[in-house]
Amino acid sequence: MLAVYAGSFDPVTFGHLDLIQRAAAIFDRLIVAVGIHPTRQALFDVQERLQLLRAATAGIQGVQIESFEGLLIHYCARRGARVMVRGLRVTMDFEYELQIAHANADMSSQIDTVFLPTRSNYAFISASLVREIASHGGDVSRYAPPVVCAALTAKFGARKG
Amino acid sequence: MLAVYAGSFDPVTFGHLDLIQRAAAIFDRLIVAVGIHPTRQALFDVQERLQLLRAATAGIQGVQIESFEGLLIHYCARRGARVMVRGLRVTMDFEYELQIAHANADMSSQIDTVFLPTRSNYAFISASLVREIASHGGDVSRYAPPVVCAALTAKFGARKG
Amino acid sequence: MLAVYAGSFDPVTFGHLDLIQRAAAIFDRLIVAVGIHPTRQALFDVQERLQLLRAATAGIQGVQIESFEGLLIHYCARRGARVMVRGLRVTMDFEYELQIAHANADMSSQIDTVFLPTRSNYAFISASLVREIASHGGDVSRYAPPVVCAALTAKFGARKG
Amino acid sequence: MLAVYAGSFDPVTFGHLDLIQRAAAIFDRLIVAVGIHPTRQALFDVQERLQLLRAATAGIQGVQIESFEGLLIHYCARRGARVMVRGLRVTMDFEYELQIAHANADMSSQIDTVFLPTRSNYAFISASLVREIASHGGDVSRYAPPVVCAALTAKFGARKG
Amino acid sequence: MLAVYAGSFDPVTFGHLDLIQRAAAIFDRLIVAVGIHPTRQALFDVQERLQLLRAATAGIQGVQIESFEGLLIHYCARRGARVMVRGLRVTMDFEYELQIAHANADMSSQIDTVFLPTRSNYAFISASLVREIASHGGDVSRYAPPVVCAALTAKFGARKG
Amino acid sequence: MLAVYAGSFDPVTFGHLDLIQRAAAIFDRLIVAVGIHPTRQALFDVQERLQLLRAATAGIQGVQIESFEGLLIHYCARRGARVMVRGLRVTMDFEYELQIAHANADMSSQIDTVFLPTRSNYAFISASLVREIASHGGDVSRYAPPVVCAALTAKFGARKG
Repeated sequence: MLAVYAGSFDPVTFGHLDLIQRAAAIFDRLIVAVGIHPTRQALFDVQERLQLLRAATAGIQGVQIESFEGLLIHYCARRGARVMVRGLRVTMDFEYELQIAHANADMSSQIDTVFLPTRSNYAFISASLVREIASHGGDVSRYAPPVVCAALTAKFGARKG
Repeated sequence: MLAVYAGSFDPVTFGHLDLIQRAAAIFDRLIVAVGIHPTRQALFDVQERLQLLRAATAGIQGVQIESFEGLLIHYCARRGARVMVRGLRVTMDFEYELQIAHANADMSSQIDTVFLPTRSNYAFISASLVREIASHGGDVSRYAPPVVCAALTAKFGARKG
Repeated sequence: MLAVYAGSFDPVTFGHLDLIQRAAAIFDRLIVAVGIHPTRQALFDVQERLQLLRAATAGIQGVQIESFEGLLIHYCARRGARVMVRGLRVTMDFEYELQIAHANADMSSQIDTVFLPTRSNYAFISASLVREIASHGGDVSRYAPPVVCAALTAKFGARKG
Repeated sequence: MLAVYAGSFDPVTFGHLDLIQRAAAIFDRLIVAVGIHPTRQALFDVQERLQLLRAATAGIQGVQIESFEGLLIHYCARRGARVMVRGLRVTMDFEYELQIAHANADMSSQIDTVFLPTRSNYAFISASLVREIASHGGDVSRYAPPVVCAALTAKFGARKG
Repeated sequence: MLAVYAGSFDPVTFGHLDLIQRAAAIFDRLIVAVGIHPTRQALFDVQERLQLLRAATAGIQGVQIESFEGLLIHYCARRGARVMVRGLRVTMDFEYELQIAHANADMSSQIDTVFLPTRSNYAFISASLVREIASHGGDVSRYAPPVVCAALTAKFGARKG
Repeated sequence: MLAVYAGSFDPVTFGHLDLIQRAAAIFDRLIVAVGIHPTRQALFDVQERLQLLRAATAGIQGVQIESFEGLLIHYCARRGARVMVRGLRVTMDFEYELQIAHANADMSSQIDTVFLPTRSNYAFISASLVREIASHGGDVSRYAPPVVCAALTAKFGARKG
């Protein structure tokens, strides 16, 4: 069973990594897919995000890092994936995700959505929080792997300099 | 990968059956497990619920019907299941389920919880609603399979007679 | 357009009365219907609840007080009502009510559900809160009309005496 | 009883149309009103949205299409409408809508808000989802009427060309 | 400033204790008050719950353990407390608590409600979960202090024996 | 005990003022702190917001108005504050606030978050609603103090002129 875990990963956090590890243990193969949205502003560009993801997931078996454009459901169909994995942190996530899952189920009954609950100690971590804290020079080493922390320091140091 | 989908199934509805079919397509083997709660009142006894589940899932590959006592996480460990499957219908479900999932993750990091969103056309169907409608002589043939409808008629007919 | 506003009304509160007044202003005729649930325990019996409702709504044009057994949707069909009115106080109400509305829409496409939001100053008032406060001898005159306050005093006085 | 159903309708979907049909069946006359927000970006301009709404609602009795500027409650007062109709899809909608309803009730006690629950099979459809799917060349013919699908194709075709 | 933290504490958990410690650090004096509800079934009687609370909070400065009957707001007024402390674990808690807080604010503007968010690692722990796990012989030593674990073992051992 | 109540206050409303009064009654000293976010667009600049806050809180004992840059938790540490006060209006607020509170608790266990529930009659008032109503020439004198109403009139008059 091939599964896809898609997101922005701007940048990848310990919350994402926990989910990737657990999904990789449940499914035979897992594609972690960075969505390309040309009009949406991001801190890291797609190449940087892919690179950080590859570095951070180097030790996890059966994981493949890719990027995609267009609708996720079309991408899954092209790749032959039967399952889309989504993380659920809080109730607000859930309602939004449920709508997307229903729309995707309506567009393709062959591809299903599976939700994994974020571990309670990671539930408050989000990529936007990590960016916010790092932009003010705060310490994010408990929320993201060293390679990401270094990239954040480089990014915000470069901005300030 | 062996997964367990546990519940009361008092009685099994089309909402449950949709979930069983989808979970059976995702995982190699699926145990549908009826929880035995001696102090909780039910319309159908455990034997009846098992029988209805067996009849209703007869055509689905890789599904096994069982009952269990005690904590679900202990039962999964005994059966060697790595995944607990839960259906999510609405936001209120989610919050409760998230707490249970966190508690289970805390008790055993080896067994994970996976949520499948109920299809939107089944989201308003629950076993308690089916019991309520049937108890007033309403038609539940759009919410539960024929074998369950017959059992409900027998149950409530017998009560009235 | 005939509308039905159903509930337990155990007892009727200022929150209910605000809704009755507003629904009566929107629809030509409004039936306020007390649901009879033989197995559910109530503080006031059905006759008492009807009497309190009649006294409390005496001054409102176009309102009729009734009781009913069985499914609300069947009762509406028997009475020729096209609309069921429901009050929404908080988010938890909403999710539950939405499920019921979807089930009713599925059972009869001819009868629709209309929600009126409870005024913010009544949103914390519920019949169970009024019963709880009154049972401890608290003052509920800001939450329920005089006829109900008197009935509560009689009820809890009689219990204590 | 004159009611107003206001929104952006960028563009009108089957979810909107279901609500318009049901509201038109409940109230004597229904104004569907496109709000003009000069600073908010939209896919279709106000004239296009009015035209699509007129085409899509041509067969529904008692419906009138208009646009308005400023606060909805002031517009309703000018038009002599006693009721504002709002659709409720999910819980997040509800909380936001409840705040707006309370603010409007505070500003004018003569105009009430009435919520209609979106049918469960339309609950995941939103204008923004339709725009998103169409922008990637996806098929939206199950979510919006033919006249809207054609307009979307023209819009995104023109953008690509 | 004297504050009251009321609850059932059936039995006290690490979640409660975390809240007691934090509230005791914020307010000069803190009364932890066990509500007596003669009609509500509990695992531990009021005397046992008080004893477990006293043992578990022995090391925390400025904390006093009491029990009370009737409405909490009346009890706070009798004790001269200006603040009621409540823990918030999840969204469902919040809505319910908000209604109670609004009702209390309406009954006495002199006594305010203050919410403390449960730490994320305790958010899934509730007294009912602890009872449920312990009743099946599960290990609750990560959710409740030793004195409570011993009491649970005695209780359920006695029941089984 | 020194507490900090931070926000945008763009502009200060009766909802904010109610919270400031109640927090000032609970804690010895209260700093009301305007967050400076250079990239976020605001109607009033930081100096105007500070001035409106000072005018509006002139009569409340123990309150100090300041502004700050960077992370709130760092600012609280610099000022020696042990408590951050947050208002809770609705459920959606709560989930977001809970995440922030968990993140802050993780970053500093010495500084706690305390939530005060917005009074029910102010729950629908937000600064953005006040701006929206005022921008259309609506009357906001029931939602904000006279000094703010005058500033809004000046602001939107100046824009139109």
